[in-house]
Amino acid sequence: MTNHASTATTSPAPVTVVGLGPMGLVLAEVLLAKGHPTTVWNRTPERASGLVAQGASLAASITDAVSASPVTIMCLNNYATMYEVFGPAREALRDRVLVNLNSGTPQEVRAAVSWASDLGTRYLDGAIMVPPPLVGRPDAVFLYSGDRAVLDEHRATLASLGDPRFLGADPTLAVLYNTALLHMMYATLNGYLQATALVGSAGVSATEFADIALGWFAPSVLAPSSLAAHAVDLDKGNYPGTLGTLRMNVNALEHIARAAEEQGVHSELPHLMREVAERAVAQGHGDHNYMSVYEAFKQPSPAS
Amino acid sequence: MTNHASTATTSPAPVTVVGLGPMGLVLAEVLLAKGHPTTVWNRTPERASGLVAQGASLAASITDAVSASPVTIMCLNNYATMYEVFGPAREALRDRVLVNLNSGTPQEVRAAVSWASDLGTRYLDGAIMVPPPLVGRPDAVFLYSGDRAVLDEHRATLASLGDPRFLGADPTLAVLYNTALLHMMYATLNGYLQATALVGSAGVSATEFADIALGWFAPSVLAPSSLAAHAVDLDKGNYPGTLGTLRMNVNALEHIARAAEEQGVHSELPHLMREVAERAVAQGHGDHNYMSVYEAFKQPSPAS
Ligand SMILES: NC(=O)c1ccc[n+]([C@@H]2O[C@H](COP(=O)([O-])OP(=O)(O)OC[C@H]3O[C@@H](n4cnc5c(N)ncnc54)[C@H](OP(=O)(O)O)[C@@H]3O)[C@@H](O)[C@H]2O)c1
Ligand SMILES: NC(=O)c1ccc[n+]([C@@H]2O[C@H](COP(=O)([O-])OP(=O)(O)OC[C@H]3O[C@@H](n4cnc5c(N)ncnc54)[C@H](OP(=O)(O)O)[C@@H]3O)[C@@H](O)[C@H]2O)c1
Repeated sequence: MTNHASTATTSPAPVTVVGLGPMGLVLAEVLLAKGHPTTVWNRTPERASGLVAQGASLAASITDAVSASPVTIMCLNNYATMYEVFGPAREALRDRVLVNLNSGTPQEVRAAVSWASDLGTRYLDGAIMVPPPLVGRPDAVFLYSGDRAVLDEHRATLASLGDPRFLGADPTLAVLYNTALLHMMYATLNGYLQATALVGSAGVSATEFADIALGWFAPSVLAPSSLAAHAVDLDKGNYPGTLGTLRMNVNALEHIARAAEEQGVHSELPHLMREVAERAVAQGHGDHNYMSVYEAFKQPSPAS
Repeated sequence: MTNHASTATTSPAPVTVVGLGPMGLVLAEVLLAKGHPTTVWNRTPERASGLVAQGASLAASITDAVSASPVTIMCLNNYATMYEVFGPAREALRDRVLVNLNSGTPQEVRAAVSWASDLGTRYLDGAIMVPPPLVGRPDAVFLYSGDRAVLDEHRATLASLGDPRFLGADPTLAVLYNTALLHMMYATLNGYLQATALVGSAGVSATEFADIALGWFAPSVLAPSSLAAHAVDLDKGNYPGTLGTLRMNVNALEHIARAAEEQGVHSELPHLMREVAERAVAQGHGDHNYMSVYEAFKQPSPAS
């Protein structure tokens, strides 16, 4: 007569990990280290040898892997691979729980949800928001969305990997937040690298530039808290241009693009940002502030 | 027998401001408020009426403006306008000091330096790194480069506007740092806005997203101090891929671009970032870490 809440407080539950790339390996290692009886499967079984030495069971087939534990966590290169890998285990998957931590797109998530539902498999979609070395640390974040009951029942197991944050019943949200946050990361890194290349063209070292760019400019001008102050206005479409207009910013973006060309470094990124800003001007935001380019970002790209 | 150092400690020196757009107006206001006898000139003289009421002298001609003070600070829309505005004051400019705070490009700075030298005018190029409301505050930063003696002689006047930072003898550095830092700013803002549009396509509000994106992700993953840790490796071209490879990141950028297309929001920015990463892979950095895209940013764009 045990229930899930009471098992969570007793010994760590058994778990299966499918996919032993750099990330899957670490997931299995952390689960083992936290005392979960851990079964693993990988297309290339040799990759499991270190885990087996640490106490993991290597399943002989994907069916055995799925049958070994109430919950199977998959960490494969993409969604297409999931169908290939789990195809032979269709029977074993009935009434089991599958947690998908592969990277993918919202449409791929919708297809996976319907595939799992056809098999009678309970399915939870998630996204890992940290690199392998941070998995299992208290500040590691894992995003989940879709079937909240699955998360609640297996929270103790999933919490061994990182803080599980539930985003909502729409199963695409974890993947969507993941792509959105990564986009933010790449855009910020690209901004920093292009800027470094631009001053580098005049012989300024990255170290010298970092002093001003990251020691002073980013913390004082680009603090997350000051960006967050704009969120309410984005939701309202409220872009008062009293402290500076989008038209002024188009002018600045034009200078950036020309400077990059003159200096012989990459210039497409500033050109594209200017084009997006000009699109927002064409939508009527010329006298609004720069955040009104949000309205252009909400539209599909002309070329796509 | 006074020298520049002693005048700096006595009463504020006279100064002329040419160009009374939103920024020039504030420069003149702050100089006036800090006690500098201030002369102003603007193509549209009506814009000076408030300043005159506060005690500024409105010069009847650009020649009078330049002759009124040892140093003239200009804040015009661009470099081309400078030649138009100062053309009639060629004689008056001899042996005077001109500080150029217009936005521009390195080539425009080089042309301005040679123009000033032909006129016998001492010239300093600078860039204003704050919006008008922050001018004159202790944390306002103004960048300067080129003739350091000019900055040192007029430091007391220029420091009334903001902390003057000297970047080096190459006069293009102020404008180059300015465009680089602004590029960083626009890239970061674009990253945030595109990300918000992406989750917004699933009905997530900007406020809700900001909670995770700016409340947790940006401070923990994109802290300026952790970016700064890469600067030494950028200078060395050292990009160890042990914790993750550029190829993995190309895969993630591909997911972002596809997610944006599926959701019907802007997708050119993620596509372009993927292209730049693929260019670095083609340069041989596939097994290096993501920061190796720096090598692609240092190259001119194929189209330009
Ligand atoms: N590494 C990170 O920093 C990180 C961070 C967050 C999220 N993620 C996500 O986690 C997932 C796994 O990433 P990863 O870094 O571990 O490496 P990965 O290269 O993305 O995935 C490797 C795994 O996929 C398997 N695989 C690939 N093609 C297969 C096929 N046709 N049939 C069967 N198995 C196949 C590999 O098996 P073999 O060993 O047999 O090749 C291995 O188990 C990805 O979706 C990734 O985006 C990774
Ligand atoms: N505003 C900011 O937040 C900010 C921040 C940093 C740097 N800056 C830079 O500061 C400079 C001035 O900017 P701003 O914001 O004050 O406004 P702006 O629109 O860039 O420049 C306005 C000034 O340029 C003059 N001007 C334009 N065309 C002219 C022409 N053909 N002949 C004579 N004068 C002409 C205007 O005179 P009229 O009044 O007669 O039109 C006015 O004095 C720019 O280079 C800008 O990039 C601005």
